[in-house]
Parts: sequence; structure tokens; C-alpha cells
Amino acid sequence: MKKKAVILLSGGLDSATCLYAAREQGFTPIAISFDYGQRHRTELNAAQALAKNIGAEHRIVAVDLRAIGGSALTSSLEVPKGGASLSNAAEIPVTYVPVRNLIFLSLATALAETEEASAIFIGINSVDYSGYPDCRPDFIEAFAKTAALASKIGREGRAPTIFTPLQNFSKADIAKEAMRLGVPVAKTWSCYDPQQNENRFVPCEECDACLLRREGFMAAGLKLSKEEIFGSPQELP
Amino acid sequence: MKKKAVILLSGGLDSATCLYAAREQGFTPIAISFDYGQRHRTELNAAQALAKNIGAEHRIVAVDLRAIGGSALTSSLEVPKGGASLSNAAEIPVTYVPVRNLIFLSLATALAETEEASAIFIGINSVDYSGYPDCRPDFIEAFAKTAALASKIGREGRAPTIFTPLQNFSKADIAKEAMRLGVPVAKTWSCYDPQQNENRFVPCEECDACLLRREGFMAAGLKLSKEEIFGSPQELP
Repeated sequence: MKKKAVILLSGGLDSATCLYAAREQGFTPIAISFDYGQRHRTELNAAQALAKNIGAEHRIVAVDLRAIGGSALTSSLEVPKGGASLSNAAEIPVTYVPVRNLIFLSLATALAETEEASAIFIGINSVDYSGYPDCRPDFIEAFAKTAALASKIGREGRAPTIFTPLQNFSKADIAKEAMRLGVPVAKTWSCYDPQQNENRFVPCEECDACLLRREGFMAAGLKLSKEEIFGSPQELP
Repeated sequence: MKKKAVILLSGGLDSATCLYAAREQGFTPIAISFDYGQRHRTELNAAQALAKNIGAEHRIVAVDLRAIGGSALTSSLEVPKGGASLSNAAEIPVTYVPVRNLIFLSLATALAETEEASAIFIGINSVDYSGYPDCRPDFIEAFAKTAALASKIGREGRAPTIFTPLQNFSKADIAKEAMRLGVPVAKTWSCYDPQQNENRFVPCEECDACLLRREGFMAAGLKLSKEEIFGSPQELP
């Protein structure tokens, strides 16, 4: 029987690449997504489509981070546009959700325990996101030790290994890896600020997430369609 | 200005004792409770009453652990009765929610970050709950290091200190400490399996939580009313 891996799947390009990387490494992927009060459902719709596309089980866990506050992604703070906030990658951006990866990895560890999964994949990346404290390798290393102590499977010596296949990848490296793995990139969604256009949501093409994504594909020298670069428009429900 | 502390408040005797301990230590307490799909609202009602009683801000964060499964407290597994599961304290009981304290401490860390709190109080106890891996001191120590790396305040050298004032207390010690601090013990709720009696919920007096609580008060030599021993009945909403 194949070993199972829990994949944190936001619906973006990075986590989608992890989903395909886990399959390539021989795991049966179980995707987990979080309905955490993000302003838009577009991410979750993309996650659902991606999991379906690869035939993976998919759990959506509701966790209301709005009750905690502190981020432009869950509150009324304005989402930065035009790349101004990208100029200093070491500064913590307003789109930072306090200790989000700590919370999400904790929930993924719970699922790994109930599913007896031997791995957790998370698409963090410390090249472009050095401003997020919980994207750095020292955090992941500390988390793995903590999760082993927190869990029944960990105490029994079967703690899940945490894989961060994109840790040292540039956006261009990730774009290339996604294409190599056959990720259906048009099905992914990165935009922080979806625009409503008649009966569809379309990516804004201006927020940091859109800009980084385009830069990645360009730097990789990939010639892609607009839908592949920014993600396909989504029908309104 | 007083320093703030985030208190994980389940509504039970242990967390209520932590709430009062934090106040005694000079902190302004901010209580956080979790609506995690527990079978009954009685715990949350008790937490609300306790926070109100001490004049503390209270946040209830919804996190749907039912989507993860694996525990009698959130699924249809039967709650053990009659103390049989207490005979081997080192075994992991069916009421164990996978890595619950890891998840709850992660969410408390997020709140500590947005509130700039300098402490987190959690009422874990490794005397009576040695079967729960995430109640042990080695877990708390590892978590504190991880939380410091995961958070903005941690990276700035202001990680919250995690206080576990009941870590080495027996149930009798906790009962004595609760009375010394003036905790309104009848307002707390411990029962895993509330019984509906006309228009009220009453404690079952038979589940592990009820039995441990009674044993604690008895071992402490405290003569209390039935409502103090098991918690007051709650009106149905």
C-alpha cells in the first residue's frame, strides 16, 4: 500500500506544485484547505478543482481567523498594489496572517494523525517570502519536533516528515517545476484581490501575488497564455 | 499599563483556575475559547460566564475539528463511563482530540501577536492526563520555541511566555488552588456528557471528567455543594 501524505493546498501555484510533487514521490495525497475567513472563495474553488483533477481526497476545515484579526487578507486593511510592498522583502507585509502556517500545520498534523499519514507537504518558500516569519526553515524544523511531541503517532516514533520542496526555489524555479510536473496552472489561483467582471471573478493582475506569479513565469522564460499566467476566471456561484 | 495575557479558557475547572491565576500574577486577562464541534455548548456557556464574572475580554474562535475526526468528543464514538478508562493513565483515551493543544496554542499565539500579549496561560496537567501527549512539559517547551520562530513578536524578541501553572498539580491541588483564588467553581463545567433534564442540562456525574473532578474536591478535603462539585445546571437556550 502506498504511504499517505497530507498536502496543504491553498489553491495557489506553490501548493498545487506540492500536490503534484507528493504524487511524484509516490505518496497518496490527501489535500487539506482552510476556510479561514479569506475575503474570497476563489482560492478554495481552485483547491477543490485541483484536488478533483488529481483524484485526491480533499478536506476543507473551517477556522475563523477573523475572530483574531491582524491581516489585510482577513480584515478591512487595504491590499497593497503595484509592487510597492515587494521592495523590502524582509519587512512583514500587511497581508501576513499572524502565525498562519503554525495554525495550518497544526491542523494538518491532526489530519496526519487520524489518517496515519507519514508526510506533510507545505509549499513555503523563503526566497520571495522572507518577510513571513513562519515561512523560514528554522520554523519548520522547530515545528516538526513539536508536532512529534504533540501527537500519538509522534510519541510512537511515527511522526510525519514535513516536506518543503519549494523552500529554496525562486519563483522562476517554482514555475519551471510546476510545468515539469504537469500542474494545470490555469486551474490555480493566486490573486489577493479578485475583480468581479459580469458573472465572473478575474485576477486583478496588480496585487503582489499576481505580480510575483507573472515575474516567475517570465523569469523562467515560459511562454504561456494569460489564463496560465494569472489563473482562469471563475464563474460566480 | 498592565501586561496582557491570553488564557485558554475551556470553561472547565482547570482553565478557570488559570484565568484567576493570571489575574493574581498581575496580567490583564484576555480569554480565548474554541467552538470546535464539541458535542455540547455547555462548556462554551460556562467560559462566557467565567470571563464575564472576572470582567475579561472573551474571544470565541470557531475551528471545525469534526472535519478532521478521531475523537469521542467530536464524533459519534461513545464517551467512556464509570472510570474504566482511568485505570491506565498512560494509555491514550478515546476522548483525546488529535493534537488539540497544539492547535489551540497556535490560535492563542495568533491572538497574543495581534494583542501584543506577553503571556499565554494553559491549564494542562500531566498528573491526571499523562495519556495525552500534548499535555506534557516537553511538548510545551518545544511549542514555545516554535511559536517564537513563527511570530513577528517572537522574531522581535518579545515571544509570549507560556505559563502552565497546574502542570504538576494533582486534581486535589487544583481544587485547593481554585478555592484559594476565589474561582466561582459552580460556574465551571467539566462534564463530557451533559444530560438533558426538562429545560436544563445537568452534569452526568459518571464520565471521567465528572469523576476526576469529584475525586479532586474529596481528596482536598473540601466540603462543597453538589453544584460546586459538578458544576451548576445550565438552562437550555
